[in-house]
Amino acid sequence: MSPQRPLITLTTDFGLRDVYVGVMKGVIAGICPTAHVIDITHGVTPFDILDGALTIWQAARYFRPETVHVIVVDPGVGSNRLALLSHLGNQWFIAPDNGVLTMVEREMARTGRAAWHRKIENPKYRLPAPSHTFHGRDIFAPAAAHLASQIERGAVAAETFGPVLEGTVQLPIPEPKPNPDGSIDGAILKCDRFGNLLTNLTARDLPGPGRGFTLDLGKHKINRVAQFFGEVPPGEVFTFLGSSGLLEIAVNHGSAQQETGIDPGAGFRLIPNPD
Amino acid sequence: MSPQRPLITLTTDFGLRDVYVGVMKGVIAGICPTAHVIDITHGVTPFDILDGALTIWQAARYFRPETVHVIVVDPGVGSNRLALLSHLGNQWFIAPDNGVLTMVEREMARTGRAAWHRKIENPKYRLPAPSHTFHGRDIFAPAAAHLASQIERGAVAAETFGPVLEGTVQLPIPEPKPNPDGSIDGAILKCDRFGNLLTNLTARDLPGPGRGFTLDLGKHKINRVAQFFGEVPPGEVFTFLGSSGLLEIAVNHGSAQQETGIDPGAGFRLIPNPD
Amino acid sequence: MSPQRPLITLTTDFGLRDVYVGVMKGVIAGICPTAHVIDITHGVTPFDILDGALTIWQAARYFRPETVHVIVVDPGVGSNRLALLSHLGNQWFIAPDNGVLTMVEREMARTGRAAWHRKIENPKYRLPAPSHTFHGRDIFAPAAAHLASQIERGAVAAETFGPVLEGTVQLPIPEPKPNPDGSIDGAILKCDRFGNLLTNLTARDLPGPGRGFTLDLGKHKINRVAQFFGEVPPGEVFTFLGSSGLLEIAVNHGSAQQETGIDPGAGFRLIPNPD
Repeated sequence: MSPQRPLITLTTDFGLRDVYVGVMKGVIAGICPTAHVIDITHGVTPFDILDGALTIWQAARYFRPETVHVIVVDPGVGSNRLALLSHLGNQWFIAPDNGVLTMVEREMARTGRAAWHRKIENPKYRLPAPSHTFHGRDIFAPAAAHLASQIERGAVAAETFGPVLEGTVQLPIPEPKPNPDGSIDGAILKCDRFGNLLTNLTARDLPGPGRGFTLDLGKHKINRVAQFFGEVPPGEVFTFLGSSGLLEIAVNHGSAQQETGIDPGAGFRLIPNPD
Repeated sequence: MSPQRPLITLTTDFGLRDVYVGVMKGVIAGICPTAHVIDITHGVTPFDILDGALTIWQAARYFRPETVHVIVVDPGVGSNRLALLSHLGNQWFIAPDNGVLTMVEREMARTGRAAWHRKIENPKYRLPAPSHTFHGRDIFAPAAAHLASQIERGAVAAETFGPVLEGTVQLPIPEPKPNPDGSIDGAILKCDRFGNLLTNLTARDLPGPGRGFTLDLGKHKINRVAQFFGEVPPGEVFTFLGSSGLLEIAVNHGSAQQETGIDPGAGFRLIPNPD
Repeated sequence: MSPQRPLITLTTDFGLRDVYVGVMKGVIAGICPTAHVIDITHGVTPFDILDGALTIWQAARYFRPETVHVIVVDPGVGSNRLALLSHLGNQWFIAPDNGVLTMVEREMARTGRAAWHRKIENPKYRLPAPSHTFHGRDIFAPAAAHLASQIERGAVAAETFGPVLEGTVQLPIPEPKPNPDGSIDGAILKCDRFGNLLTNLTARDLPGPGRGFTLDLGKHKINRVAQFFGEVPPGEVFTFLGSSGLLEIAVNHGSAQQETGIDPGAGFRLIPNPD
């Protein structure tokens, strides 16, 4: 618990053209005027739960303990999917129960940190007469603001949100798959603003330092491994260990997606160089 | 009047690529450093006063009393159009007098809430040597920040902004038009980020609960009415009462605009089903 | 030094689709929770140092003294380019040493204001194990937050960031070039969201008031000079002295870039009318 103003982050697929994000902030400011709201992004690909899962996993670790993360990528809004209040490690997450927290949950499991979940059901923590199509405004933003107020007062009462939930919906995010010959099969998870392609491999999946590898994407075979962009001539495709800890494919002064024509979802094989 | 930090919202067609929005915030922070500034959107269609009018109408009700809303969609900047300080219901609005407040004003009239307007003329409440092309920075942002400072001090002196204005410019926004046969003519007002088409009809214009209807858009006739997206098979066009209270046309996991080819401005007829 | 909460601005080419900007704000909030962070824009053209240089030059003057401006347009990230802490006039600038501050530095030189620079080298002011590809998060954001904390305490210790740097990298931004016949050669620096073309000419380069001129762009010759958009019939190309103090080319209710087909980088000649 902190004497600081409480911190809420927002991650959605609402974009910034419409009123949706501004309205969520109006609702938060009405309930918890001291809350400090930070946008992670509202540019998640519409309805793309995997993109949302990757986004919050990339960002959450850079926020302080007790941060309240609100994630709204919610193609099932209005259906009977549940609303979650999750405590993962030392932060709070408020989201639809549709798998958007899967990557953070896996990270907690891998690193042995505690995780628990509750359903958000208390009608006092939502707007009156919630709509069937905008739970970001009517359910998730008010719940986050009420939680932030409790954090500020040093009096979190998670049990008032709703009952404990034993399991959550898990998204089938592809995991790295090692092969008997020492190669490893991976997948492209996302393309970022610069055209960099983020894979599902991390440093743990790569051959030891100093040992190179080839990424076989079918039409394309990439064997240049770099530490930073400026090392590589403009236009050449290379791989590097990205700032989120994921292996990425990039082109210096260019777009790896445009250069390779490869999209999120594609698979590839990483083949270590011979010793 | 509130002991809270004063709240200012921004709604513009400036986009986020250029410095315009950041500069407005710099001006506000210089005059009223405690102000809490929330972006509603800067993605209003350029020069589209109707889009601006709809945007602020959708959003304002989710902000607390005494909020100061700044709306800059201003194709007439530099001409002799007036600058408005309006008090509508229990909130403040600062905008060019070009009709961008029409929808909020109509709502106030319909619900019997008070509304008054003043011209913003006091040179103390603007930047020195205002430009002819960026009143957002030179006139509207400073006026909002000075008003926010007065609100914070509990000493609003609206009369110091300028004289009372009896009438404001009204935008000819299409209103629902009932026909003798029980049908009603409506219009598409906007397409949102998801491709949903927002109409000018509200719950008040629809047949009673349980009675279906057909929306006749010429080429397209829509008779599926849903409460939420997941009810409807992907790809099917349907109508629902949207989260702003407007009837909307949508496609589950798709774009109604792309599916129907219908753009804002188009008209349609709502025909209730026979009893 | 100020009792106000410290003010940090962000200018990057990161866009808003990914987590990069949100993560920088998480880092800042962790180090200096009271900091007030304002986005100038994250829409700088990727890798375009000139666009970044113009952006921060346009915006900085509208922020109060002691503002900390962070500018991350950084194609050389990970290479041996330096990180700068610059004090220009009465504000702070944190940026890669790649010329992105050139326009602000020139303005300081032209107006006789003080400017000095230090390298940012102190490992205490960065995240542990900084990446090679995201110094915005690992170097620039933490440095800005530590500086903001010092500003708030009234105890700036610039020498703790690193040693004084005598010269900085300068970008070869085209300067207006007067010709013997009284004409002047200029260049297009940028196209904004509205399609307005910003040139490198200012009021100082124009013929005296009341004396017209022609802008010769090769295929296009523009002789209409206006004060504001509404003066000019829709569709007509004209020039005006823009809100940043630069001569701009515009079309009322249209895009000058689309109308003329001219892009940033193009040159032109301004020819004053005969007396």
